[in-house]
Amino acid sequence: MIKFARVLCDNGRRESWCRLNGEFLEVLVGDLFGKWGVSEEKLGSDEVRFLPPCVPTKIVCVGLNYRDHAEELNMPVPGEPVIFLKPPSSLLGPEGVIRRPPGCSRLDYEAELAVIMKKTARSVPVSEARKYIMGYTCFNDVTARNFQEPGGQWTRAKSYDTFAPLGPVMVSGAEPDGLGIELRLNGRVKQSSGTSEMVFGVDELVSIISGYMTLNPGDVIATGTPPGVGSMAAGDTVEVVIENIGSLRNYVAE
Amino acid sequence: MIKFARVLCDNGRRESWCRLNGEFLEVLVGDLFGKWGVSEEKLGSDEVRFLPPCVPTKIVCVGLNYRDHAEELNMPVPGEPVIFLKPPSSLLGPEGVIRRPPGCSRLDYEAELAVIMKKTARSVPVSEARKYIMGYTCFNDVTARNFQEPGGQWTRAKSYDTFAPLGPVMVSGAEPDGLGIELRLNGRVKQSSGTSEMVFGVDELVSIISGYMTLNPGDVIATGTPPGVGSMAAGDTVEVVIENIGSLRNYVAE
Repeated sequence: MIKFARVLCDNGRRESWCRLNGEFLEVLVGDLFGKWGVSEEKLGSDEVRFLPPCVPTKIVCVGLNYRDHAEELNMPVPGEPVIFLKPPSSLLGPEGVIRRPPGCSRLDYEAELAVIMKKTARSVPVSEARKYIMGYTCFNDVTARNFQEPGGQWTRAKSYDTFAPLGPVMVSGAEPDGLGIELRLNGRVKQSSGTSEMVFGVDELVSIISGYMTLNPGDVIATGTPPGVGSMAAGDTVEVVIENIGSLRNYVAE
Repeated sequence: MIKFARVLCDNGRRESWCRLNGEFLEVLVGDLFGKWGVSEEKLGSDEVRFLPPCVPTKIVCVGLNYRDHAEELNMPVPGEPVIFLKPPSSLLGPEGVIRRPPGCSRLDYEAELAVIMKKTARSVPVSEARKYIMGYTCFNDVTARNFQEPGGQWTRAKSYDTFAPLGPVMVSGAEPDGLGIELRLNGRVKQSSGTSEMVFGVDELVSIISGYMTLNPGDVIATGTPPGVGSMAAGDTVEVVIENIGSLRNYVAE
C-alpha cells in the first residue's frame, strides 16, 4: 500500500502531490496519473494543508448500497445501482468546514468509501476493474435532507458547496473488501459496518458505472453508506474512519 | 449580439476560440472568460469542426420548467426548480452522433435553451443575473427514458456519453425571453413553444441555482424543455432550433 496526498505548501502558495513516508511527505514530480517520480524535497505534515486527494471531473454516488442500510430503511435491495452526481464545486478537504445552507433544517452525514479512478474507463469488465482504480479514500456524502423531497431528485440536497468532504489521503494497492467503516460524531460512533455489506462491490460498481458513462482519471465513485445516518449541528466534529484507508475529519458551522 | 465558437482547426490539431464575422471566423487570442482579443487569422467554416461552445465543470439541468409541458404531463408547476446534473463526459458537439446505449428501448430528445456562465456566481440576486451570463446556446437533453425509473433518480438515464449535445455557437448579448424554440426530427417539427412559457426564467434560474451551488465560468444551465418530447431511432437527424440563438443538428446511431 502506498499513501498519496495532495497538499498546499509554502504558506498556501504551491500545490503538490506527495507520497507519505513515515513522518514525512516526499514531494512528487510529474503526473501522478501518468509518469511521476520522487523529488529530493521532503515536507513535515505541519508545513502543509491537505487538499482532496484528486481533482475529479465528476463524483458519481451510489444510493442504498449497503444491505444493512436497506434493511434499516425497510427498502428492497436495488437490482442495479441507484446513482446520482455531486458537482466538483461541492468538494471539501480534510479539516475543512461543512456549512449548513440557509433553510436547511436537517443536515446529515453519510460515511462512505470512495474509489478514485486511474485511467479512462468505458464498460470495463468486473475482472479488469482493479487496473482502472488508482486508490481509495474516505468520503462524507453530506445531505440537506429536507431539500431531498421536492421533485424527487436528490441533486439539490446533495450539491451545496462543502457537501463533499474527501480525504485525507489516497491509498493505492489496498484491498477494499471487508474493511470496517465508521462515522463518529463528536467522538461517538454513529455508523459502524463493513464494506462486505455492500450490495454492489467496488469492482462491480466500476464495471457497471463505466458502462453508464466514461470515467476519467481522478473521477470519484462514492460507494454508498451503511445504517445509522443522522444529523449534524453547528459546532459538531464529524469523522469518517475506514480501516486501512484513513480518517477524514471535518467541522460543522452555520 | 456577438457569436462565439470553439473549433478544431488545422485538421483537428488545434483548438481555438473564434468570433463569427459574416462568412468568416476570426481567431481569438487570450481567455474568452477573461481578457481576449482578435488576431489577424481568419478561418472559413469549411476549415473547422465546431466543438461545444464552452468547457463546463458541471451541467445543471432543470426539469418541468415549461408551463405548457407541465400541463401536457398533467403535473403541477413546481414551486422551486427541480434540478439534476449531467456529467461533462456526456457532452457532444454540433453535427456529432448520439449513440443509443445497449438496453435503451426509448431514446428521447428534449430541446432546451442553455445558459453559459461568465464568472463565478454565488447567490446572485435576480437583478444582477445578466452580469454573470456569458451567452446562450442550444441544448438537447437526450434521455434513455426506460432507464429513468429504477430508484427514481434521473442520473443514469441522462448521463450516457453523447447525451448532451450543445452548440453550435454561444450568443452573447441576446435577450433570452420570448424566443421561439423548436425541435425538428428529420425536418418535421415535434416541439414548438417559446421561452416565455418557462416557469422560472433565465435570471431566476441563475439566481436560485447559484444559491444551491457555486457556478463557475463555462458552467451550463439547461433551462428545461417544452411539450412534445418523443423518441429517436438510428438514422434520424435531430435539430434544436432557437430563434436568434442557432440550430444544433445531430445524428442518431446504434
